[in-house]
Amino acid sequence: MAIVLGPNRYGKAEVRVVRVTRDGGTHRIRDLNVGVFLSGDMDEVHLTGDNAAVLTTDTQKNTVFAFAKKYGIGELEEFGLLLARHFVDSQPTIHHARVQLEEYAWDRITGPHSFVKGGTEVRTAVVHSDGSGGAESVVSGLKDLTVLNSTGSEFHGFVEDEFTTLEPTNDRILATAVTAQWRHRGTDSKWDESYAAARNALLDAFATTHSLSLQQTLYAMGRRALEERPELCEVRMSMPNKHHFLVDLEPFGMDNDNEVYFAADRPYGLIEGTVLTDDAPDAPSAWN
Amino acid sequence: MAIVLGPNRYGKAEVRVVRVTRDGGTHRIRDLNVGVFLSGDMDEVHLTGDNAAVLTTDTQKNTVFAFAKKYGIGELEEFGLLLARHFVDSQPTIHHARVQLEEYAWDRITGPHSFVKGGTEVRTAVVHSDGSGGAESVVSGLKDLTVLNSTGSEFHGFVEDEFTTLEPTNDRILATAVTAQWRHRGTDSKWDESYAAARNALLDAFATTHSLSLQQTLYAMGRRALEERPELCEVRMSMPNKHHFLVDLEPFGMDNDNEVYFAADRPYGLIEGTVLTDDAPDAPSAWN
Amino acid sequence: MAIVLGPNRYGKAEVRVVRVTRDGGTHRIRDLNVGVFLSGDMDEVHLTGDNAAVLTTDTQKNTVFAFAKKYGIGELEEFGLLLARHFVDSQPTIHHARVQLEEYAWDRITGPHSFVKGGTEVRTAVVHSDGSGGAESVVSGLKDLTVLNSTGSEFHGFVEDEFTTLEPTNDRILATAVTAQWRHRGTDSKWDESYAAARNALLDAFATTHSLSLQQTLYAMGRRALEERPELCEVRMSMPNKHHFLVDLEPFGMDNDNEVYFAADRPYGLIEGTVLTDDAPDAPSAWN
Amino acid sequence: MAIVLGPNRYGKAEVRVVRVTRDGGTHRIRDLNVGVFLSGDMDEVHLTGDNAAVLTTDTQKNTVFAFAKKYGIGELEEFGLLLARHFVDSQPTIHHARVQLEEYAWDRITGPHSFVKGGTEVRTAVVHSDGSGGAESVVSGLKDLTVLNSTGSEFHGFVEDEFTTLEPTNDRILATAVTAQWRHRGTDSKWDESYAAARNALLDAFATTHSLSLQQTLYAMGRRALEERPELCEVRMSMPNKHHFLVDLEPFGMDNDNEVYFAADRPYGLIEGTVLTDDAPDAPSAWN
Repeated sequence: MAIVLGPNRYGKAEVRVVRVTRDGGTHRIRDLNVGVFLSGDMDEVHLTGDNAAVLTTDTQKNTVFAFAKKYGIGELEEFGLLLARHFVDSQPTIHHARVQLEEYAWDRITGPHSFVKGGTEVRTAVVHSDGSGGAESVVSGLKDLTVLNSTGSEFHGFVEDEFTTLEPTNDRILATAVTAQWRHRGTDSKWDESYAAARNALLDAFATTHSLSLQQTLYAMGRRALEERPELCEVRMSMPNKHHFLVDLEPFGMDNDNEVYFAADRPYGLIEGTVLTDDAPDAPSAWN
Repeated sequence: MAIVLGPNRYGKAEVRVVRVTRDGGTHRIRDLNVGVFLSGDMDEVHLTGDNAAVLTTDTQKNTVFAFAKKYGIGELEEFGLLLARHFVDSQPTIHHARVQLEEYAWDRITGPHSFVKGGTEVRTAVVHSDGSGGAESVVSGLKDLTVLNSTGSEFHGFVEDEFTTLEPTNDRILATAVTAQWRHRGTDSKWDESYAAARNALLDAFATTHSLSLQQTLYAMGRRALEERPELCEVRMSMPNKHHFLVDLEPFGMDNDNEVYFAADRPYGLIEGTVLTDDAPDAPSAWN
Repeated sequence: MAIVLGPNRYGKAEVRVVRVTRDGGTHRIRDLNVGVFLSGDMDEVHLTGDNAAVLTTDTQKNTVFAFAKKYGIGELEEFGLLLARHFVDSQPTIHHARVQLEEYAWDRITGPHSFVKGGTEVRTAVVHSDGSGGAESVVSGLKDLTVLNSTGSEFHGFVEDEFTTLEPTNDRILATAVTAQWRHRGTDSKWDESYAAARNALLDAFATTHSLSLQQTLYAMGRRALEERPELCEVRMSMPNKHHFLVDLEPFGMDNDNEVYFAADRPYGLIEGTVLTDDAPDAPSAWN
Repeated sequence: MAIVLGPNRYGKAEVRVVRVTRDGGTHRIRDLNVGVFLSGDMDEVHLTGDNAAVLTTDTQKNTVFAFAKKYGIGELEEFGLLLARHFVDSQPTIHHARVQLEEYAWDRITGPHSFVKGGTEVRTAVVHSDGSGGAESVVSGLKDLTVLNSTGSEFHGFVEDEFTTLEPTNDRILATAVTAQWRHRGTDSKWDESYAAARNALLDAFATTHSLSLQQTLYAMGRRALEERPELCEVRMSMPNKHHFLVDLEPFGMDNDNEVYFAADRPYGLIEGTVLTDDAPDAPSAWN
């Protein structure tokens, strides 16, 4: 029996780059959090500490900033592809690059160069590249999109065992913070248009699905995105059930006709699922 | 020399109450985080553990929920006043009540009962009451309002001592997360209208002030709110300087004409200041 | 009616300085988070943006690092006093300095230069100085010291009103995360010895007080520290009641004889109080 | 092309259970955060909202509490196995159960029932079961174990490209917050003894490895655990490089002989790797 090195990767996480572009006196800003993760011929650095194959994480960080200057920051996925391909194409020891991007929205206030930070929602992208001409994948997405239906949600007909005390209900609040990621078939989608449409499909399906379970809502959301966007082949979602419990006001001589709720923190239900087209190609490197 | 009990208070923090109101099929929601803090004849509970004067924090929580049902949640400050007066008026041992409220915004999606959580910004209110007819104060405010000017900010002419290395600049990014609180002269402002106008005054002053220092911007913001809203007499602000450092791209043969910035976390400058009218009455209980 | 500038201060928050000292091959490390806040002749910077009186927050940061080299980091309070006096003594426009310090503990692993981070507990100090020879104060303390008694705590005999549903109890878990600050009479205590003894007094009083209310426990803790440490004249504490609710197992045919608890997050009770000696001098600048 | 349901699971996250055991007057406490995730015949609940196959997350939570009473909380992994097997064995629609556990340490203060919360470090376990007699796996671990070597770390000999500015160094601080998970060959290890020994192996290897790269240190840590614990077959680690930058004191006329460091937050290097024995069986369900 021997001890061996298994899968590994390294990189720079959370490079916070802000890019200002001027169009006459009008400014635009892009506010990103970028992570780079590389793998390749890394046996020696683990076994002996020989760094000859290592492009340092400091250099990775510098490259993010330099590319922001050189190419600007266009669409999120495109910037990720530029970076990922660069590392594999330029370094003989690097065979796989993964770039994770988050973008924070800013809205304009008065005037051409003043901004207020947008919602809690974050746009995301994960790009994998084995180099120009090699295997590549792009996963777009969002996180922390918190939504709530104040009616139109039921929950009943579930298994009851010796530990079940939950009462079935025909009307409850359904609230969740959506994390969703959708995989593109290729690497040439119209990224911003695709993002806006997919996000809208998710939101619309959430709002218009009369829900018998959060799983049903999740599936409807993923399905809608795939139906509307042929450039996509798979959607993965993670949706915590942010419980809103009806407060018992009976001790105070009051009824509570779905009016007053306690918003609980922990524990919470957590629903995770995948919706995909039956012709979606396998893409393990897109996800791991 | 004797050991004695000094100032004290107790209460229930972070009561997360969500109130749904139905207008036909159309729902409205209010999403609040409420804290109650009481003080009065509390010597015995500290000295001997005798709880005869203690209205429990559990009851305080119940009261928040019951009032949300009984009175609905109208304007934030009004709900706070109702609660604060109730505790002092109904309990002979309670002489001062402080109610702290935060409200989270929700925007509508499609349909009459679907919502998406709004920005990171939080509306706040702090109400103090010594009971109906006693001293009262109302402080409205906001926190986590993150704003940025991508130009129109300078910083130079400062003191230079032996530990100074900062270069003066004529053009920098100015970004901050505003926490602001403004005190009302009375307890009968038009709360929602006043809030919207004060918030707008702060934002507009931030955007339109050509800044030579963050202190100058802070003062301009507070001044603008007081100029526009005669119902207010004092504004307190805390504004971290969220540093955006220009990345040095010279080693890569690139200039950086205020285009690529690194958004830093820590340390950060922190500017705190008060702007008030010279006829503002003292109100220590509003603030402590 | 005119609009005027009120109280203000500015500074650098969260300077994360780590100081290594070598004693032969044996290393010691001090890991601090330092904040500096200054006030003085700051009207002009607010009114016109003239920075002639401003020692920049960047320079404040540099000073923290330079002093860590020049003087080393000895006892926490002493390092704070050195810094606070320096700013007022060296700058004619600065009249008050406040230095806030946190220290994170590290324990040794094997060998002379390897460490593992200690508990969640943080040692704190706040130093105020109007300059050498001027008014000064030192407040030591700790935060995030989480403690729990699994029995020896009762709660009954409280006020019952129309919104009261809480049942009295003769045996509950009492848990809290202590934030405590204690004020020294002078500026020449033996800081480390005093800290260790005050911390121990708080812990011991928490563990040995049979509690009828969290207020009683709080008072006993503050009293104990003052009784044991004559160099102290005031203790302020903030103690959230980290509720542990007994789980109702009766639906499953089980009793729950104080064995299985649910640790809740929000809402929580919050008890704040002060214990002081009756000869404690006033010191508003120590606390605000 | 059709749209289909892919992999999915659901469960209750962050069940915060505290178990008190009394041995005469002496109490012991176990403080856990438990998550349960189930999968099986869940097509209908996604496609139509039919909950007939769903054991609710509320029942899962109840089961955690009831088992804490019924069986006590012995070793962490054992409690996880009891729960995981229960769900699959008792529910015909559930085919896979995953139980994730975190344990928070408490140390004794004075007396038989008083405790102070231990370090930031958290003990973890992840148990997968396809039911008694089916495939099972146990992964033990820890997270947030923050360690630092104040010398004995070098970094040089790395790739230099056009974006490289990092200087090589022969002496730096090496600090990281270890997340490590180790897989057991079977389901009958002596869990507590194994945990203590594996943790000690990691710590000792960190402290005694003269490091030429963080990857080398990571590999040495995993290797040591496998060498010392034959019941283990695989170790996965994620180690952020918590950068400590030497402060440039030269502008102040001071040298900085590895004495004064700035502890940075973001960005940070992130090293992830696996060490395993060459006879380790595949176990995808242990990890995903």
